[in-house]
Amino acid sequence: MIDLDFAKMNGLVTAVAVDATDGEVLMVAYMNEEAFRLTLETGIVHYYSRSRDKLWKKGESSGNVQRVREIRVDCDRDAIVVRVEQTGPACHEGYKSCFFRTVGADGALTVNQAQLMDPATMYGGKS
Amino acid sequence: MIDLDFAKMNGLVTAVAVDATDGEVLMVAYMNEEAFRLTLETGIVHYYSRSRDKLWKKGESSGNVQRVREIRVDCDRDAIVVRVEQTGPACHEGYKSCFFRTVGADGALTVNQAQLMDPATMYGGKS
Repeated sequence: MIDLDFAKMNGLVTAVAVDATDGEVLMVAYMNEEAFRLTLETGIVHYYSRSRDKLWKKGESSGNVQRVREIRVDCDRDAIVVRVEQTGPACHEGYKSCFFRTVGADGALTVNQAQLMDPATMYGGKS
Repeated sequence: MIDLDFAKMNGLVTAVAVDATDGEVLMVAYMNEEAFRLTLETGIVHYYSRSRDKLWKKGESSGNVQRVREIRVDCDRDAIVVRVEQTGPACHEGYKSCFFRTVGADGALTVNQAQLMDPATMYGGKS
């Protein structure tokens, strides 16, 4: 397994999930060594949830899993980009991408994409 | 100014810089509140360097600055995507993107893009 630098952020590296079909950034999350290993071994993206403080198989409750198509690592080995085949919306708020709001010059937020699902139907939990 | 969640990561949010022309992920870095404010005010991307523990105007030593074209914020406001007009390579190793290596199934790394500049000519410092 490649040698990522987990030391810089208390055992975590930053992971950027990108839609393999159009390159859109879907979400940013974090992986510990176990999550990274499981991601490589299973081909299904696993993160480490900082808020719940535990391993998090993306889509475990919602079914909106991410299948790995490619993994890239950055120059100092503390961040990865994972190109994924995303089932359903990546965001627990029902949008394709968690980055569904654009910041205007005045700081105002504008929704930049359609909501694909009603979050209430996505099993409640953060997927 | 919009209210980002700087509390979750010791005063930092995660920032993903994306090439505004083709959507490629260029780098992942971090911003504290001052860096985010300066980025909004000046239109030039500023980060906070965790390794040097100080404000970091990207390209200050190399000239490879990033001009802001658009900023998006994620659902829980602790990560942003900045679409940028990148001058020169984003990576201090001379590649367009810091994610210039792909991780193979066996863990081997393969360079996935051409080196645009010799790092030795990029003023040495991490730009």
